[in-house]
Amino acid sequence: MRILIIGAAGMVGRKLAEKLMGEGSLGGRKIDTIHAFDVIEPSYGASGGPQIVSEAGDIADAAVVTRLIRHRPDVIFHLAAIVSGEAEVEFDKGYAINMDGTHHLLEAVRHEGEGYCPRLVFTSSIAVFGAPFPGKIDDDFFHTPLTSYGTQKAVGELLLADYTRKGFIDGVGIRLPTIVVRPGRPNKAASGFFSGIVREPLAGQEAILPVSEDVRHWVASPAAAVGFLLHAATMDSATLGARRSLTMPGLSITVGEMIEALKRVAGEETAALIRREPDEAIVRIVDGWPRDFDAKRAEQAGFKADADFDSIIRAHIADEEARKVAFG
Amino acid sequence: MRILIIGAAGMVGRKLAEKLMGEGSLGGRKIDTIHAFDVIEPSYGASGGPQIVSEAGDIADAAVVTRLIRHRPDVIFHLAAIVSGEAEVEFDKGYAINMDGTHHLLEAVRHEGEGYCPRLVFTSSIAVFGAPFPGKIDDDFFHTPLTSYGTQKAVGELLLADYTRKGFIDGVGIRLPTIVVRPGRPNKAASGFFSGIVREPLAGQEAILPVSEDVRHWVASPAAAVGFLLHAATMDSATLGARRSLTMPGLSITVGEMIEALKRVAGEETAALIRREPDEAIVRIVDGWPRDFDAKRAEQAGFKADADFDSIIRAHIADEEARKVAFG
Repeated sequence: MRILIIGAAGMVGRKLAEKLMGEGSLGGRKIDTIHAFDVIEPSYGASGGPQIVSEAGDIADAAVVTRLIRHRPDVIFHLAAIVSGEAEVEFDKGYAINMDGTHHLLEAVRHEGEGYCPRLVFTSSIAVFGAPFPGKIDDDFFHTPLTSYGTQKAVGELLLADYTRKGFIDGVGIRLPTIVVRPGRPNKAASGFFSGIVREPLAGQEAILPVSEDVRHWVASPAAAVGFLLHAATMDSATLGARRSLTMPGLSITVGEMIEALKRVAGEETAALIRREPDEAIVRIVDGWPRDFDAKRAEQAGFKADADFDSIIRAHIADEEARKVAFG
Repeated sequence: MRILIIGAAGMVGRKLAEKLMGEGSLGGRKIDTIHAFDVIEPSYGASGGPQIVSEAGDIADAAVVTRLIRHRPDVIFHLAAIVSGEAEVEFDKGYAINMDGTHHLLEAVRHEGEGYCPRLVFTSSIAVFGAPFPGKIDDDFFHTPLTSYGTQKAVGELLLADYTRKGFIDGVGIRLPTIVVRPGRPNKAASGFFSGIVREPLAGQEAILPVSEDVRHWVASPAAAVGFLLHAATMDSATLGARRSLTMPGLSITVGEMIEALKRVAGEETAALIRREPDEAIVRIVDGWPRDFDAKRAEQAGFKADADFDSIIRAHIADEEARKVAFG
């Protein structure tokens, strides 16, 4: 089978590609080719199994997307997006990639025609929801995105559902929690500290905590995110009915609980590397984010959340060890 | 002030234009020009007040929309749409007009720039909702459109909210109930009989009733629709917060209650012109439609529903009399 990953150079895209390379099959079918596409050309370590075809390009260009689909991939993972902060500042760019790019992809599949109806896994976001929130946000909570990014993801969900209803694609949309622990260097995203307060102390570095310890958030590990994508690619999508997008199950956890877990896994000294430095701007942003969900539909559909935050930390440590072995 | 009506040749657009011509002002400001735009050139009777500029064109063409906005209208009514049945069959046309056309309009206003931020009244639809429904659909009910038309309207609502949030427009979206009594000839719309069972008997013609009398529906008169549009154009939109689209208040009424009202207003003999001829296809379509809403937000925002169905019928009779006087 042929797999196309759009957004294959991002953190989740890379982990997905590596997982597929390692397994060599998806849903019991042998993977022949992984077409890894992104705005910069993705590169991975050697693959023992599937052939990797890496390519750089811009999904805002409909002709580029049409060409991508000519290979008639059996499964398409559409992870490409301009992230929230950038889409808010770069208004045109956000719409061009997040809305038009997604529409181009759906149109390209439709026009390929002749019975071609691939599984299309679309990564949406909990940014389709907007405050004020109830304590737990259930599957019937209405969409009021309060950012351009959230708006564009909500439009993507609507298009995914309509193109699926019409029989042009077989779409499944998954709303990812905030991914923690993100590997790599600190970034300027307002949500960056959720990863930073674990990642930096584990690396012997100081981390800044800009909010209070009672801040609650909805998180999932990189491995859980890859698990969601694989399950979305192979599940019986007919069970979803007309509502093709789902809030993924996560952990609802406070910053204080994260720090307690870090102490249990890595010791008091490691956790002592977290420095409290309240930042009013970040406090305000985080205050508008959803904290807890009742992701019943996704759970019933077989999506699995992380067991607990301790195991998220342990998995991050294991990943870093493996990376050191691979890259020295 | 300058007013632009996009979709000015349709039934509601015509009635809106005629109302504005008659009043000569909107929200206490004198109307200088009404720019009446549609895919066919709108034509009305003589206007004593505002200058009427009629024009035909296609909003799927971004350049056409940009040119329309060069006149910098103070208020824009965007009523243009490919209707539900046609958008379902003509997939490209529906997206080109209902989604792209609306996006072109928002982009044209944004690019006009230099502090230009007109009130934009967008007619959405209760088709943004999809079955299964609760008894009464409240303002927090989630959107699951089950048609391409409903999808396109839901996308329009999302874009309207985001462009408003960013300060590019001052948008208000109104979800209209089914308009009853539509004047003119019977059409093939599945909802056509709701008007037909009143309009045809009043004109001495037989009408077909394809569903049972216990079918409940959500309706408003043409005059109420025009009232919604005028209120949306002049209300304090800041009270809407982030959620710029509202379900308009209507009457939830059964077919049997409509017929009882017709008997009261026009007599048993008139109502006897309704012939029961069940049509399974129409029964199934109507079965998937919403029946009743709790339109609390719109009521609190000052939108007014019709008093009762008797007065809707009387208003239709008066309109027809006036039309006969005008056109012989």
